[in-house]
Amino acid sequence: MLTMQDALARLTTYWTDQGCLVVQPMNTEVGAGTLNPATFLRVLGPEPWRVVYTEPSVRPDDSRYGENPNRLQTHTQLQVILKPDPGNPQELYLGSLAALGIDVTAHDVRFVEDNWASPALGAWGLGWEVWLDGLEITQFTYFQQAGGLNLDPVSVEITYGIERIIMALQDKTHFKEIEYSPGVSYGEVFGQSEYEMSRYYLDDADIEANRRLLEIYAGEAQRMIDAGLPVPAHSYVLKCSQAFNVLDARGAVSTAERAAEFGRMRRLAGEVAKLWVDRRTGLELPLGTVTPLAPARPAAAVQTGDTARTLVFEIGTEELPPAELRSAREQVQRLLTEGLAATRLGHGEVRVFGTPRRLIAVATAVAAREEDHVRTIKGPKVQAAYAGDGTATKALEGFTRGQGVTLSDVETEEVGGVPHVVVRKHEAGRAAPEVLAAVLAQVVTGLRAAKNMRWNDPRLAFSRPVRWLAALWGDDVVPVAVSTLAAGRRTRLLRTAVPPEIEIASAEDFLETLGVNGIVADHEDRRELIVIGAQDLVYPDGRIDVQGEAALIDQITDLVEQPLPLLGTFDEGYLSLPDAVLTTVMRKHQRYLPVRDADGKLLPMFVTVANGPVDVELVRAGNEAVLRARYEDAAFFYRADQATPIAEMKSHLNRLTFTDKLGSMADRAGRIAALALSVADRLESGSPVLRRAAELVKFDLGSQLVTEMTSLAGVMARDYALHAGEDRAVAQAVYEAELPRNTGDDLPRTLPGALLSLADRLDLIAGLAATVGLPTGSSDPFAVRRAFLGLIAVHRATPRLAGFDLTEGLALAAAAQPVPVADTVLEACAEFLTRRLEQVLTEEGQPVDRVRAVLPHAARPAVAAALLGQLRDAVGDPGFQAVAEAVQRARRIVPAGTPAGYDAGLLKEPAEIALHEAVTAVAVPASPDVTAFVAATRPLVEPVGRFFDEVFVMADDPALRAARLGLLARVRDLGDGLLDWSHLRF
Amino acid sequence: MLTMQDALARLTTYWTDQGCLVVQPMNTEVGAGTLNPATFLRVLGPEPWRVVYTEPSVRPDDSRYGENPNRLQTHTQLQVILKPDPGNPQELYLGSLAALGIDVTAHDVRFVEDNWASPALGAWGLGWEVWLDGLEITQFTYFQQAGGLNLDPVSVEITYGIERIIMALQDKTHFKEIEYSPGVSYGEVFGQSEYEMSRYYLDDADIEANRRLLEIYAGEAQRMIDAGLPVPAHSYVLKCSQAFNVLDARGAVSTAERAAEFGRMRRLAGEVAKLWVDRRTGLELPLGTVTPLAPARPAAAVQTGDTARTLVFEIGTEELPPAELRSAREQVQRLLTEGLAATRLGHGEVRVFGTPRRLIAVATAVAAREEDHVRTIKGPKVQAAYAGDGTATKALEGFTRGQGVTLSDVETEEVGGVPHVVVRKHEAGRAAPEVLAAVLAQVVTGLRAAKNMRWNDPRLAFSRPVRWLAALWGDDVVPVAVSTLAAGRRTRLLRTAVPPEIEIASAEDFLETLGVNGIVADHEDRRELIVIGAQDLVYPDGRIDVQGEAALIDQITDLVEQPLPLLGTFDEGYLSLPDAVLTTVMRKHQRYLPVRDADGKLLPMFVTVANGPVDVELVRAGNEAVLRARYEDAAFFYRADQATPIAEMKSHLNRLTFTDKLGSMADRAGRIAALALSVADRLESGSPVLRRAAELVKFDLGSQLVTEMTSLAGVMARDYALHAGEDRAVAQAVYEAELPRNTGDDLPRTLPGALLSLADRLDLIAGLAATVGLPTGSSDPFAVRRAFLGLIAVHRATPRLAGFDLTEGLALAAAAQPVPVADTVLEACAEFLTRRLEQVLTEEGQPVDRVRAVLPHAARPAVAAALLGQLRDAVGDPGFQAVAEAVQRARRIVPAGTPAGYDAGLLKEPAEIALHEAVTAVAVPASPDVTAFVAATRPLVEPVGRFFDEVFVMADDPALRAARLGLLARVRDLGDGLLDWSHLRF
Repeated sequence: MLTMQDALARLTTYWTDQGCLVVQPMNTEVGAGTLNPATFLRVLGPEPWRVVYTEPSVRPDDSRYGENPNRLQTHTQLQVILKPDPGNPQELYLGSLAALGIDVTAHDVRFVEDNWASPALGAWGLGWEVWLDGLEITQFTYFQQAGGLNLDPVSVEITYGIERIIMALQDKTHFKEIEYSPGVSYGEVFGQSEYEMSRYYLDDADIEANRRLLEIYAGEAQRMIDAGLPVPAHSYVLKCSQAFNVLDARGAVSTAERAAEFGRMRRLAGEVAKLWVDRRTGLELPLGTVTPLAPARPAAAVQTGDTARTLVFEIGTEELPPAELRSAREQVQRLLTEGLAATRLGHGEVRVFGTPRRLIAVATAVAAREEDHVRTIKGPKVQAAYAGDGTATKALEGFTRGQGVTLSDVETEEVGGVPHVVVRKHEAGRAAPEVLAAVLAQVVTGLRAAKNMRWNDPRLAFSRPVRWLAALWGDDVVPVAVSTLAAGRRTRLLRTAVPPEIEIASAEDFLETLGVNGIVADHEDRRELIVIGAQDLVYPDGRIDVQGEAALIDQITDLVEQPLPLLGTFDEGYLSLPDAVLTTVMRKHQRYLPVRDADGKLLPMFVTVANGPVDVELVRAGNEAVLRARYEDAAFFYRADQATPIAEMKSHLNRLTFTDKLGSMADRAGRIAALALSVADRLESGSPVLRRAAELVKFDLGSQLVTEMTSLAGVMARDYALHAGEDRAVAQAVYEAELPRNTGDDLPRTLPGALLSLADRLDLIAGLAATVGLPTGSSDPFAVRRAFLGLIAVHRATPRLAGFDLTEGLALAAAAQPVPVADTVLEACAEFLTRRLEQVLTEEGQPVDRVRAVLPHAARPAVAAALLGQLRDAVGDPGFQAVAEAVQRARRIVPAGTPAGYDAGLLKEPAEIALHEAVTAVAVPASPDVTAFVAATRPLVEPVGRFFDEVFVMADDPALRAARLGLLARVRDLGDGLLDWSHLRF
Repeated sequence: MLTMQDALARLTTYWTDQGCLVVQPMNTEVGAGTLNPATFLRVLGPEPWRVVYTEPSVRPDDSRYGENPNRLQTHTQLQVILKPDPGNPQELYLGSLAALGIDVTAHDVRFVEDNWASPALGAWGLGWEVWLDGLEITQFTYFQQAGGLNLDPVSVEITYGIERIIMALQDKTHFKEIEYSPGVSYGEVFGQSEYEMSRYYLDDADIEANRRLLEIYAGEAQRMIDAGLPVPAHSYVLKCSQAFNVLDARGAVSTAERAAEFGRMRRLAGEVAKLWVDRRTGLELPLGTVTPLAPARPAAAVQTGDTARTLVFEIGTEELPPAELRSAREQVQRLLTEGLAATRLGHGEVRVFGTPRRLIAVATAVAAREEDHVRTIKGPKVQAAYAGDGTATKALEGFTRGQGVTLSDVETEEVGGVPHVVVRKHEAGRAAPEVLAAVLAQVVTGLRAAKNMRWNDPRLAFSRPVRWLAALWGDDVVPVAVSTLAAGRRTRLLRTAVPPEIEIASAEDFLETLGVNGIVADHEDRRELIVIGAQDLVYPDGRIDVQGEAALIDQITDLVEQPLPLLGTFDEGYLSLPDAVLTTVMRKHQRYLPVRDADGKLLPMFVTVANGPVDVELVRAGNEAVLRARYEDAAFFYRADQATPIAEMKSHLNRLTFTDKLGSMADRAGRIAALALSVADRLESGSPVLRRAAELVKFDLGSQLVTEMTSLAGVMARDYALHAGEDRAVAQAVYEAELPRNTGDDLPRTLPGALLSLADRLDLIAGLAATVGLPTGSSDPFAVRRAFLGLIAVHRATPRLAGFDLTEGLALAAAAQPVPVADTVLEACAEFLTRRLEQVLTEEGQPVDRVRAVLPHAARPAVAAALLGQLRDAVGDPGFQAVAEAVQRARRIVPAGTPAGYDAGLLKEPAEIALHEAVTAVAVPASPDVTAFVAATRPLVEPVGRFFDEVFVMADDPALRAARLGLLARVRDLGDGLLDWSHLRF
């Protein structure tokens, strides 16, 4: 059996064989290998650096007294830095797994999107977590920034989680059982330390002492920065971080402190980074500098045919995130289509396919050459070209000389109505490869992701590194060259294929050749393989909810190139855990498809989708072990939570920050409770259930399980509340307070739940609008947009709330914020609400004119929606149409600001007198009710029509005109407060 | 080339192959691998533990900005703990060197006594530094105590100094040049950190901040102890240690603080240790317990001959310190001689030989059996044995029954003059092997060293482990068994011999067989090989000062089993360093013999003595490299010191502790200066030279070179003072202040030097006598005895001091101490001085009676010595004899307390009147001068003789008797203050 210490030794040896040097762990406590100066400082600046080291990583917050099977206050990282990116870091990494004895052809090794950022260090990078049969074993990051400085060259950071890898390899279920060295278990060596350090961090560390340590450390760090010594300064920044983490684990960090400390650490780390770079420059870069890669030379342009052929262009990448893959497919489609359109190259359909590792554009029937073309070159005006005697002027001579033609080649053409001399040139169309090379190059350089990164290429930037290009027009290579990449006819297969690269004869063979080698380029094909394969596996007992899991299936589809669905099972005992826990783990953490029986009851099985021809039994067993560990972990938390009084859990909210400016989660829960009760008062809907639920709201955020799986907030609240003996209605309300969690989610069914849900969202919106601002574009880190949508949904779904004005609710919420909320902010919120309601209703298929007509009621979405329903019936009613048209017509005619009063005695025409009488007789209902309005205004239909037919409003007599306008203003105002009549179309 | 990181990997692999587990360096700064809990805590208690780890060891005080080629603030230790002692740790260690590619048969690998103690940790152990061709590469310690607790089982601690080993293997002269990993130098990786951390430790660390850190750490350590958590407590003790070291490097630790901090750390470490042991016991010793070795079964007792044969007994040990080896030889001689004497076994001469690895006792002509023997057993008195009728009483019957004899066997014998019944038993002598087995066992168990240790043997204790026994009587094995060791006929040769063990046929062959295998058992033989070999090597240019280097040669002789003298050379350039520096390095650090030319001038060469058949060129080159590095180091310090103003060096004395209670060295230097000036005032001997020298005294203790080589104190002071342009006489005086450094050393030649030397010793004695106490037995850590001897020597050698009373000097010194010095202490000092003077003079061959006679002048040794010289002449003078006898006689007759006054008018007898007149006429000189006294008292000779002949002192008349006694008292007092007359013998 590979012991843990052997594993460390083997990895170290493997990486030293790759040219890494070995350093020792940091001699002060660090939370991760990244903090070791061998990473944090060395990734800065232009010097090359390759290093491997072990780093016992201390995370006080992960202290569990050694009881949790998978969580330790000190876990062991093995850290590798490759600077610069060697171009094949993933392949090198796979080699390291092989060095551990892991057969990467038999296992399912996957690179799953995972980006990394440390605000306290001003550092971030893009990359993946690496999965081994579903188990996260490594963080793999292209380091982009550290200490606020852009990294050039970029470093590859590979961080192995050793305990986790070893537990998998040794098939252990508790870290203490790891065989650390021959015959000695991890628990025997480190168990006591794990317990005692947990005691220190969670229970016994002196808060005041650690606070003083933090201050002293920060002081020394600053002093060393001032002295120009980044090395000791960095060491003290690390000590700051540890002291802070201790305070945090002891629950002693207030929101304000946290923000201040993060700011201070970020600033210190930034100064350290700058200083380091300066010092290294001053030392003349002892380790030298990295030479950037040279631009690639394109392949020779060869064209072997002259008939139209297929074009295939493959952009080979490292694993793209699913969302980026979708976006990239669309971009390639657009860029290539536009690029071709800008040429004179005839071509057929353009289609784009994508897998995590490639984007493939296919254009059929691409002509061998551009069409020939006559180009007209404008010369001087004829008047200026010829002298009075018809001889050529200097201007004309200059023009012909410049164009390399004789006077006899010159023609005349009107340009903008003025005759000019022109020259016509016949230009032969360029050969397809030449044309395509330019177009395809722009496709590559044009690619952009939501978050772009850099790698070893000096000029490109994208979601993940682009590693190869293949471009064929028929049998010929299109000589594309982009930065360091030159296209050829070679493509890469699965990394585990033998050989991993092949040449492709012609564009027409491309997809088929890939397919023969197992790679399914088309998303839809892969999806079908997954859906059908999964259904087959679970038949006949279970079924996959293909509809309900559509988003997950789409994601899985874009995580593999060669999908291989596998069925796994788990112990039935875990079915005693809440359903949401089980499915959350499967979906969010593992991307497994849950399996249910005909009644929708979960079955103890799951479907996972491997990539490529793995050893099915091995991968199944691995995934089952991962799920077991996850469930064991969840069960551990679940039991621990159940043993924790609700009040204690709730007290943990003090330690959770909502945002820097808006206080802790406890503050927020308090505001929600108060707001819900206040709204209930206004609606005279208070109840003991609401009061108790308000006391409890969000308490489960203090539970261990929800800390682990935040998406279970609410669900666990209900579960724990019931377990604690709370009233069933209270438990339900606390659950419903979190609804809806996303579009299409369940809505509160009870009034207490609805009130809490509303209060939650009102508080979120008011606070964030005032501090962070309302979301724009696609960025919405705090999900404020979703909160608005929730407000709308809850309001519409809760009859008792129909009369409640959400802008009033926002004002109440604003008043309770710890920051001032300006009126303009509230106005912006109201407008944002209106726009969201418009969007929601429109997306429900309502005609946009009617939607807009009801938007004056946006603050009461239920009212707006109800009106919209009435409108659907009313619009067919000729009477309503007549009234509506009259109102609209009146609005057009009557100048703005005209009051609806007039001297009835001035009216003379019978039609106007009739209208006056009818209008005076109508009693429009006070509440917004289209049906009632239609009924009430029915008597107006005839007089209105007659009035417009017979009366000339703009009489010469000013007094009469005023009276008529006043009468019309009365008509205009008839539907005031009911609809925005201006938008209605018939 | 073996890179440094490869070396670490190879050693780690080697030791894991030996069953060690690997842990990581401590994640807080530590000064040595010993502090890592994997050593400090794990050596405690009964659990087994084998571990190997790398420990970057931080020693702020060693900061040199990366400039010194051999000294770093962070150096790399590789630490191994073997618990329990595996019985062959040295052999395992040699295997590790082989794993590094070191050919241990070609190199000279040696285990040179080096004991280890850390008072701050309450820890100590005995062991060696391991030399590779003269280079110290490893500390090897049998850990005996940690945290004040005795360790059972004992752990073996092996600590490799990696940079040093690698510099040797890579033949580098500066640590920065080490090839750390392929193509990357140590300096490139760690140079900047070395500089910056040096800056922090030496210049920039905030003293107040580190003081506060120290307090906080100590507080947390104590709190964790109180909470029963030794692991975090230990971590905080280490942080204390680091903070303290930072303060120390910044020169911010006062003497009082140092003492207090060491005390606190020792206490905390002790509590941590106790707590750890308790906790492990509470956890039921997760790693199990060590099974002690079982007692050995002795060899079968076989006796194959019946003639007298030679006995050989070999006690095989690990390398004994030379001093212990001498003592052990004597012990074996005594124990064996006494042991044999207690048997009835005839034997010839007993001789004992010794090498570092063996003690060999040889007894010739040991008889095959003990002589037979008749034993008489005493029974009841005859009177009680027989009834009146001559029949046996119950008592007699009981006696015969008890002895298993019949009444006819009973005889009668007088015991103490009373007739008893007795029984005589004939007892056959036991066979030699049986008798010898018991005797030899007692030799082993009887061995004791000045400092004894324990190893894996559960019952033995000695200077170093005893690993094997060989015992032969003629051809037969003597079946000795002691604890786990059973003697046989196998002995071990050099560890590098092939094979390393052989069997020896008979005792008579023993020494010869060893000799054939290269091992020279006899100290004298080895010494001769060394002396002759060395002389041969340096002939004809150089010579070895065999007389002057006798002690060193003796030491070298006991460091090897098979001496191989080798000649090495060094660069002539180093001859510019002071002679004392060169020879100190050679002698003290390297045990090399210096070579001089006919004029006594040092030649650039040395002789070292290897052990066994090494590769001469290799070992020579290695030793030369070591010496070069040492000289380079010394030159580095020398240059640095020369660049340092004297005042600055002197200021460093503030940072040097003299003793906890007696303040810093600066305090001490100040006291010496004041005292010297004060004494000079009394002697009216003040001078500008003295005043300046007093200002400077001991300044060189603040130099780097003397810090490294304390034995150069004084020598360097003179050198640096001259370099700084001080007056030659001042420089000489500062040098002489340190004289004499040991018995037989030079003495001050100038008065200022003598005054400073005196003051130095007076201060030392007064202070230490008051705080530590005067030395008793052989323990004299502060060399107080030597200070007394120095006082005596200087006083005698300096005529101007002759009149100065040392007890007065001690009183002056006492008054200046920072602690009270009681009168009783001063009296004890005076007594101690007297005893030393008595010893000195006696050892000079003076008759003890005369020595004692002059001891009243012990406070002025020059006077006492002068009187002794006069006495030598005077004792032959009949007049002096007569006076002396008269004085002695008077002292015997006159009752104590009788005053020397009388009424002369009462005297009647002519003889007494004559004596009265003669006494009255004598003018005894005031100064102690025997010659003058003899001359002055010559007129008394005749009257004294006549008085005793003619006058009966004890007259009946009380008045007369009083007058006669008064007259005699006058005689008695004649020599008062000159001699202690009572001791004089003629």
